[in-house]
Amino acid sequence: MLGLDALASAAYGPEAALTLLIPLGAAGIWYAGPISAIIVALLIVLFLSYRQTMAAYPHGGGSYTVAKENLGVHAGLFAAAALLVDYVLTAAVGISAGVGALVSAVPAWQPYILPICLAILAVIWLINLRGIGESGVVFALPTYVFIVSLLGVIAVGVFRTLTSGGHPHPVEAPPAMPAAVATASLWLLAKSFSSGCTAMTGVEAVSNGIQVFAKPAVKRAQQTLAIIVALLGLMLAGIAYLVSAYHIGATDPDGKNYQSILSQLTAAIVGRGVIYYITIGSVLFVLSLSANTAFADFPRLCKLLAEDEFLPHAFATRGRRLVFTGGICILALLTGALLTVFGGITDRLIPLYAIGAFLAFTLSQAGMVQHWRKQESKHKGIAATINGVGAIATGIAIAVVLVAKFVDGAWITLLLIPGMYWTFNRVKAHYNHVDKETDKTDPMLTTNLDPPLVVVPIGRWSTISAKALRFAMRISPDVTVVHISANADRLPQMKRQWEIYVDKPCRDAGLTPPTLVIIPSPYRRLFHPLLDYIHKLQKEYPERVIAVTLPELVEPRWYHYPLHNQRATWLKAALLWSKDRHVVVINVPWYLEKRNHSGRHT
Amino acid sequence: MLGLDALASAAYGPEAALTLLIPLGAAGIWYAGPISAIIVALLIVLFLSYRQTMAAYPHGGGSYTVAKENLGVHAGLFAAAALLVDYVLTAAVGISAGVGALVSAVPAWQPYILPICLAILAVIWLINLRGIGESGVVFALPTYVFIVSLLGVIAVGVFRTLTSGGHPHPVEAPPAMPAAVATASLWLLAKSFSSGCTAMTGVEAVSNGIQVFAKPAVKRAQQTLAIIVALLGLMLAGIAYLVSAYHIGATDPDGKNYQSILSQLTAAIVGRGVIYYITIGSVLFVLSLSANTAFADFPRLCKLLAEDEFLPHAFATRGRRLVFTGGICILALLTGALLTVFGGITDRLIPLYAIGAFLAFTLSQAGMVQHWRKQESKHKGIAATINGVGAIATGIAIAVVLVAKFVDGAWITLLLIPGMYWTFNRVKAHYNHVDKETDKTDPMLTTNLDPPLVVVPIGRWSTISAKALRFAMRISPDVTVVHISANADRLPQMKRQWEIYVDKPCRDAGLTPPTLVIIPSPYRRLFHPLLDYIHKLQKEYPERVIAVTLPELVEPRWYHYPLHNQRATWLKAALLWSKDRHVVVINVPWYLEKRNHSGRHT
Repeated sequence: MLGLDALASAAYGPEAALTLLIPLGAAGIWYAGPISAIIVALLIVLFLSYRQTMAAYPHGGGSYTVAKENLGVHAGLFAAAALLVDYVLTAAVGISAGVGALVSAVPAWQPYILPICLAILAVIWLINLRGIGESGVVFALPTYVFIVSLLGVIAVGVFRTLTSGGHPHPVEAPPAMPAAVATASLWLLAKSFSSGCTAMTGVEAVSNGIQVFAKPAVKRAQQTLAIIVALLGLMLAGIAYLVSAYHIGATDPDGKNYQSILSQLTAAIVGRGVIYYITIGSVLFVLSLSANTAFADFPRLCKLLAEDEFLPHAFATRGRRLVFTGGICILALLTGALLTVFGGITDRLIPLYAIGAFLAFTLSQAGMVQHWRKQESKHKGIAATINGVGAIATGIAIAVVLVAKFVDGAWITLLLIPGMYWTFNRVKAHYNHVDKETDKTDPMLTTNLDPPLVVVPIGRWSTISAKALRFAMRISPDVTVVHISANADRLPQMKRQWEIYVDKPCRDAGLTPPTLVIIPSPYRRLFHPLLDYIHKLQKEYPERVIAVTLPELVEPRWYHYPLHNQRATWLKAALLWSKDRHVVVINVPWYLEKRNHSGRHT
Repeated sequence: MLGLDALASAAYGPEAALTLLIPLGAAGIWYAGPISAIIVALLIVLFLSYRQTMAAYPHGGGSYTVAKENLGVHAGLFAAAALLVDYVLTAAVGISAGVGALVSAVPAWQPYILPICLAILAVIWLINLRGIGESGVVFALPTYVFIVSLLGVIAVGVFRTLTSGGHPHPVEAPPAMPAAVATASLWLLAKSFSSGCTAMTGVEAVSNGIQVFAKPAVKRAQQTLAIIVALLGLMLAGIAYLVSAYHIGATDPDGKNYQSILSQLTAAIVGRGVIYYITIGSVLFVLSLSANTAFADFPRLCKLLAEDEFLPHAFATRGRRLVFTGGICILALLTGALLTVFGGITDRLIPLYAIGAFLAFTLSQAGMVQHWRKQESKHKGIAATINGVGAIATGIAIAVVLVAKFVDGAWITLLLIPGMYWTFNRVKAHYNHVDKETDKTDPMLTTNLDPPLVVVPIGRWSTISAKALRFAMRISPDVTVVHISANADRLPQMKRQWEIYVDKPCRDAGLTPPTLVIIPSPYRRLFHPLLDYIHKLQKEYPERVIAVTLPELVEPRWYHYPLHNQRATWLKAALLWSKDRHVVVINVPWYLEKRNHSGRHT
């Protein structure tokens, strides 16, 4: 499962590289071969290097952990920032490339690329919010369909090419290549290479998720990585070979006749039949799943950062369904923003992509070099060399990507990563500051522990107000019930009810009855009269604590929640913001569905 | 100011009508004249009709109020639903048309229409969240610039046309008209008319906002409406005349060479000089302001509905800055969604637009007919006739729009309005249900008023935990401090601190010291051990109420808020959801900025 991300990138890596070769016209595709060869070579270096990381960090060696432990906290934070950016782009590119495949198959949906992208994002978001659980089979099947159908299509294509002497006849002719408007330059090839590098961005995921493998975990994870890298290499090489054999070039991703490379290739080899739609369908699914892996990785990294207090504690808190709600929602928001700004067009997102992943790779592998230097192993020289080569290779790739893609959007990533690094440090500094400021090294005061003055705002006499009133009387003998009266006509009834239902029973039981205070509010305002009254009370009794009880209606159905309690929430916020340090807010819940047993409410 | 909405529609009404005439090629623009004439005639009927509504409802006669009072609640709710839809579209169309003008002037920004739209929406949203206050001058100036420059351009154009014998020479030639691909049909003309009708959607605003005028309010509001209608009529007629004189047609709104009608017209009459950019700039500003009026009207109508319990109470609650935060945020969300789905292209939004406004017009005017029938006025016959004609005219317009625009998107409005009507009724039913279920007609129980068992979760000994502990001891003699220990190494220190800082001082003062309960949590979990403990306590003491005190850190800076209290919020939610009816949550606030006076905390 963890290889999804890596495999799915086979679907957009070649596409991204070829799109940049459009200006070269038909000549461009001849360069697809050599560029793919360099990418596959880099992939093998990465594979060897990460194989070692896995062995050294059997409990999950994410770039953040490896860099932090070996190169120090600051390198770790840079790696974390780079990875977070990378995950957001994995999600955005996965979805947009999937939708790119979809609109290639169904061109009528071309105008709705962005809404479709956002709809898929919403589905992934909701699935992750609810927690995924044991849905392995649901995910595994389309992945196998993807691998089998794509490799099958490639095999058929290679066979036809070989039997036709290198000039196969396409079943459906791909769109004509545009005329060349530029000649090949090292610059253009570098840009194309750096785009193609996005095909490698998924390798990190396997290393990060090592703990989910069955024992022997390291061995299995290494085997998985080997299989994934082999499959990815095979797919990349096959696509590169067939693209030149069939004369397939990228089409303008903004244009109305956009056709993804995989769609053109599949249509050329097997025609637009059942196999075509199965292949494209599995591409869409696998790419959406690769976006889904970001929804696992991003919150997990946020949790690690939050535990180290570099992000708000909330990111380390599991929600009701044991998922990290905070991280999931932030990722969904960022991905949605990115998709919206770039119109859901993969091609515009690519320039931002590779840098984050490669920076994390470089830091992680540099960390591994440091790791080996500290070890007492006889193979440490070789091991350090392999990781060193990996670090240098990905470092060079970063430089190429940065230079080649700077104006196209790489500058955004270059601003974001230091910005996030700065934020991490600010958050840490803030937590340290608060800890220091609230530090207490003296004994608790034991004087002046009088019970609070309790204020109970009541709108009408109901089971809810009765419960709040009872709680108030439990904690203090000084209870004041405040009724804000917007309608003077109803006052007599209110007073009569008070007399019969509260005042008399209390006297009968020998208790001091609560005081009833009625505040007229002709303009139907609720908050200001109440807040004014509490401030007045505070001035009158500067030494007393004031406890305001607010009833809270708990609904059996969550979608009823917005219908209630908003006033209580506002009032609580207003009380807190008024900075009256002697005010405490008490929430007395009332459970609506238990209405038939309200006697059991205390 | 209230006329902005109405005036601004002059900028997109003609555009919308002409866009539909594109298939007719050059022949299409000849129909612009008659269509505009019908629209201006309808406008005059609307003017006369609304003049009377204002006189009859001097305290603000929105369609909801008028329809509710005269035709009953259900007609009122339909009018309200129609108006809410209308306001969302006013905001969306105002912004998208403004950005349409902008990209006409700066074609390089064409690919970023949607992000620009969303950025403008965000600015309007933030301005409204903060409350606008006395910014009248800021708003009035660009409106005058808009009126003066647009009327000036029209005057120059008309003068040149007349002096050149009807065939003026454009300063900058507008794009060539496309070849005709269709012939004129009643169907096409009806569609064009119904699109042009959007030019009238702003009339409601003046009638709705009548109370903001100085006295004599009715007279002034009527004069304002007269001026606005006259200006709008003049602009519409002028644009229609000049469009045919200069042979200007709409351009494909999806295409890369999109040019709004106003942009083409201004460029043709005065060239792309300073006056051109002033005019286009004021168009952008006025259209954005017309979106801004929706941000005043929508929350106000939501408040009326919420006061009648057809929407959640929260919509009737003013926020800290006295604005209706709920309505403003919902409107921003809906507008953003609409802009995203339709790519920020005005032309795609138009089919949804006119129905909402016209349905509200029809119901309001039908309500006025009913109003006059009940009155004892000698002019009531004439008055009722005027409103009746208005109702019938707008009713016919609805029918035309519905039929002409059904497949293009009017069906969305047609689903939305009954859907909202249904929602209003469900909300009302729910509130009625809750009121009935929590009704209490028996006296308060006065038995079993023991103090609660108070549980104080403490992470470390700090000023915050000291305050929470002191409050707990105020309200009950039975206080238990719970410490969830994730790290056993720190336990001895914790125990030592407890001994010195809490236990001993309490004994010295002759108080019962609180009980310390330490719960080990090797997996760093916080919630489950605590919740389990509270449930255990509940089982042990079924008759006691359990009060959980949660400290709440109040930060001097709002953007620090996400850094804290999330755990307390989660814990509170978990306690509420566990449906333990004997648990009460107490929030003890701690104000961080007063740290130097922490002794004053009680």
